[in-house]
Amino acid sequence: MTKFDEATQAIRVDENTYDVCLDPGYAIGGPLNGGYLMAVVLRAAVDASPFEHPVSTTAQFLRAPVAGPAQVRVESLKAGRTAAFARATLVQNGVAQIEGLITTATLGDAEPMYADGPSHDMPPVEECVKLPDPKPESGMTLNAQMELFFDPPTIGWLKGEPTGRPESRAYFRMAEPQDPDPYVLALAVDALPPVVFSAGGRGWAPTVDLTWHLRALPAPGLLTVLASGRLVSDGWFDEEVEVRDSTGRLVAQSRQLARVGRG
Amino acid sequence: MTKFDEATQAIRVDENTYDVCLDPGYAIGGPLNGGYLMAVVLRAAVDASPFEHPVSTTAQFLRAPVAGPAQVRVESLKAGRTAAFARATLVQNGVAQIEGLITTATLGDAEPMYADGPSHDMPPVEECVKLPDPKPESGMTLNAQMELFFDPPTIGWLKGEPTGRPESRAYFRMAEPQDPDPYVLALAVDALPPVVFSAGGRGWAPTVDLTWHLRALPAPGLLTVLASGRLVSDGWFDEEVEVRDSTGRLVAQSRQLARVGRG
Repeated sequence: MTKFDEATQAIRVDENTYDVCLDPGYAIGGPLNGGYLMAVVLRAAVDASPFEHPVSTTAQFLRAPVAGPAQVRVESLKAGRTAAFARATLVQNGVAQIEGLITTATLGDAEPMYADGPSHDMPPVEECVKLPDPKPESGMTLNAQMELFFDPPTIGWLKGEPTGRPESRAYFRMAEPQDPDPYVLALAVDALPPVVFSAGGRGWAPTVDLTWHLRALPAPGLLTVLASGRLVSDGWFDEEVEVRDSTGRLVAQSRQLARVGRG
Repeated sequence: MTKFDEATQAIRVDENTYDVCLDPGYAIGGPLNGGYLMAVVLRAAVDASPFEHPVSTTAQFLRAPVAGPAQVRVESLKAGRTAAFARATLVQNGVAQIEGLITTATLGDAEPMYADGPSHDMPPVEECVKLPDPKPESGMTLNAQMELFFDPPTIGWLKGEPTGRPESRAYFRMAEPQDPDPYVLALAVDALPPVVFSAGGRGWAPTVDLTWHLRALPAPGLLTVLASGRLVSDGWFDEEVEVRDSTGRLVAQSRQLARVGRG
């Protein structure tokens, strides 16, 4: 069991309730990372389902839970032959923190009937760059859990040279060796700095809601995470993420609606 | 009040319950159209919210409700300064049919900080084509409620010439003159034939879940609906829709996960 497996563990305490312990190692400043929190919720939802894989997850980020004990309450809405639907709520101190709708199914490994190529080319990993280590006092503990190798222009904003478009692209793997699985993908779809930083945005950009689809089980190796946005307007922006596995297969798609920071 | 406004009316009967009457004029064969059903749910959710606009909607399509009376149950999850979160369930004969998570806010009309162009060019509307009227016995009553002018290659599948890619593109307006609003957009994001028809798929392609974001209030005039998919695999496909108003502004974005028909 890896540290990530442990940090996302959900222990069933009754038919609808799971105990979890939110790990301080997944913080981005004060709050915990949304992708990590989704992975925790999904552990419970998949355990409670007759199917194996979370094919669709929507999370509304109502509040920012803190590290420590919490519960996931799972309510089955319908279990059919192909898919099951459930509502899952992350609760801390009796207050709902994340509200989720999760569809589970069991994916096979058939050859696709149709598959698009990647939406953007990546340079080879040797030409990609890491972000500088965050200062210990920043509370960015998440950075130590994963390794990201960025397409250089998409972190130009770090030295005052944003590309002018909302975008962020990187290769991704867990710092502790681990093959990617659906829970790692939940982390990956929300792991990069907000795309709005490349369009001149700054500061804490809270996710309001995020939907992601698991399209295939990832092969071992590096993931490629391609993130972009279409519209930054009225304080809102969309962030769309496509994740491909080491064979180039589309394994996850997400879109989140988030607020532009005031920083 | 237009026929569409009437068909989507939600009348509050107590703090959390709205009476609705599902209209047989929005059927696609037997079942009612998912976009229409979302519009009905949104009428209730927005009425119950302190904010004016449904900025984010996720719907799980649990079952296929029939025309006639139903209820929408709305439960507020949190109302903050910028946005409010609610769960909304369409219930018929005591059984949940659609489970929704809806985020509301009030959109302004500020100039965007960043705006992408359309993902695909459309020919002028004069070069676009309508679908043939469905046979009365087909039960496709939805077609009479709206006017769609298709980019010709994307309905090539009708004469056995699919493009080979999951795609569908059309100009859209209501048959009864009405300016587009968020409820019309809920219909528009699920109004075109499934994109998988252009990739060789056939038959009833049920939506499993759909998430759409309202990005701006649409200007009067024709909408442009651009739909595409990235992966058709293992019986599942994604359908992504971008809706632009008559000024070219991005007003709605959606993605649904659906099943390939066996037809």
